[in-house]
Formats: sequence, C-alpha cells, structure tokens
Amino acid sequence: MRILGIDPGVATVGYGVIDYSNGRFVHQRHGTITTPAHTPLSLRLMEISHDMQELIAMFKPDVAAMEILYFSKNITTGITVAHARGVLVLECGRAGLPIYEYNPMQVKQAVTGYGAAEKRQVMEMTRRMLGLEKVPRPDDAADALAVAICYAHASGMGDKMI
Amino acid sequence: MRILGIDPGVATVGYGVIDYSNGRFVHQRHGTITTPAHTPLSLRLMEISHDMQELIAMFKPDVAAMEILYFSKNITTGITVAHARGVLVLECGRAGLPIYEYNPMQVKQAVTGYGAAEKRQVMEMTRRMLGLEKVPRPDDAADALAVAICYAHASGMGDKMI
Repeated sequence: MRILGIDPGVATVGYGVIDYSNGRFVHQRHGTITTPAHTPLSLRLMEISHDMQELIAMFKPDVAAMEILYFSKNITTGITVAHARGVLVLECGRAGLPIYEYNPMQVKQAVTGYGAAEKRQVMEMTRRMLGLEKVPRPDDAADALAVAICYAHASGMGDKMI
Repeated sequence: MRILGIDPGVATVGYGVIDYSNGRFVHQRHGTITTPAHTPLSLRLMEISHDMQELIAMFKPDVAAMEILYFSKNITTGITVAHARGVLVLECGRAGLPIYEYNPMQVKQAVTGYGAAEKRQVMEMTRRMLGLEKVPRPDDAADALAVAICYAHASGMGDKMI
C-alpha cells in the first residue's frame, strides 16, 4: 500500500510518499511544492494543481492523508491554506484517491504513541520508522511523512474520509 | 465587458453573468451550482470544478469577481467555503480570467451607494440595475450578481486582483 501524505499550504506544500506492508515502512520520497510570493493566488493554485498531478502520476499512491485544518493561530493564513487544501483535495479526488484526514493529536499518537508529543519527538520517530539517516527536512515534508504514517497506523482509530 | 460574479460555497455556489458597457448593464444569467450533502468533499469539489468549467466555456466572461472571505461568524463553515473558493479561483485562473475580490462593504457601496446598506436594499438595487422583474433568487445568485456589479462600478476604488 502506497500512501501520499500532504501538508497543505500556498507558499509551500509538503509531501511524503511511503509504502507500508506487514507492519513495515519503505520511504519513497519527500519534498515540497513551492510557489513564488507576490504572485496572484490563481497562478499559485494552478502551479500546486499541476505539480500535485505530476506527483500522483509519478508515484501512483493508493491513498492520500492530510491533517485537519484548524484556525486557532492565524485566521487569515488559515483561509489561504484552505484555498490550497481545496485544490489538493480536488486533485486527489480526480486521481481517484480516497482521502483521509486526522487531527494533530491523532498524528502524534500514531507516530510516537503519545498524543501530546513534542514536534521534535514526532520528527525523530518519523526518521526512525522510515529508516532515514537524518530528520526529514523541511518541516512541511516531515509533517507530510508523519500524517502518511498516521494513516498506516490509524486503521480503526476513527479514520475520516473527506 | 462580460463579468462573472461568484459567491463561493460547497453546498451552493452562486453565480451571475452580466454585460457592462457605457454605464449600462445587461443581465445574462444567474443561478447556482449545488452539490449533494453527505458526499465526500473531494466529489463535491470535483462537481464544482466541472460545472464552473462548463459555465465559463458557455458564457466566456472577460473577468471574474468574488467577495473576500471573512470568518467572523463560523470558522468551521469558513474553512469549508475556502476549500471551494480555492477550486473556483483555480478554474478561473485556468480559463485565463483575471479575478477581483471585494469586501462586503465595497459591494454594498458599489450597488447602493451606501456601505452599510441592508441586504434587502442591495437586492432591490441589483434587481433595478439589471432590469429584472423580481429580486434574483436564491440569495447566493443575488450575491454573485451584486459582486459582479461591484466590479463594474469599483474601478479605481481599490480593486484587488487575486
């Protein structure tokens, strides 16, 4: 089973592709889609749409996983992120991928076994589980890998398909 | 100049198409794109994307206008609306339409001459300006027509292209 984890954003979309079978992970790829600042939102969304289509065509994942959006910190940023997230959900849907979403506590629980884990613990466990030499960078890509791991571990933990 | 006004939403997208030249409006069409409840978000966004593509191909507008999103009332609803808005911005961008956005006060000001006008005043003025017998229904379509009128009247009033 190949899982595409996505961390949505307009300036930076993090992605992580992992395989999971028999309780083992194989890391395939992680990285980011970035779009230039001071550019109309429509052009940035078109780039995200295009690059996500290419990524899906290249890696042919079976399923996509994303974090649920919360706007507790900055509502204006959150609005923009939700625009990008809509485009990413659209492209996954077009490619026929089922999409699952998790809240941050579920991701922490699934990766570290502890729902209130700190970010560096989540990153270190992500590194170990995927057999990487270094903690994955940047943060957006690491978050995308973590939510992909969450999908693999979360079966029966209240998956929510969007 | 043909203007496509859009009122974004996941359950209901309002749209209004009007022509504007020499200070006069000609109403072309208004209506809604609706998506079924209890359906995965990805499928609803795919339907919105598809129907907006068809609408643009049919009416060939020169420009699109939308309201700026504010989340003062219901953040959860706002997150969902922003997903749909991202898809609508994407489709306008793909079709090569410049997109302008306005805040609610600008729309009221442009349609009624009074930035704190009540909703029914905006609707009545929209009806008169477009020479319609009745106030346009539903509200989502009326809002879309109003923001299209706003684009026509707002030149130099702080247009913002997204």
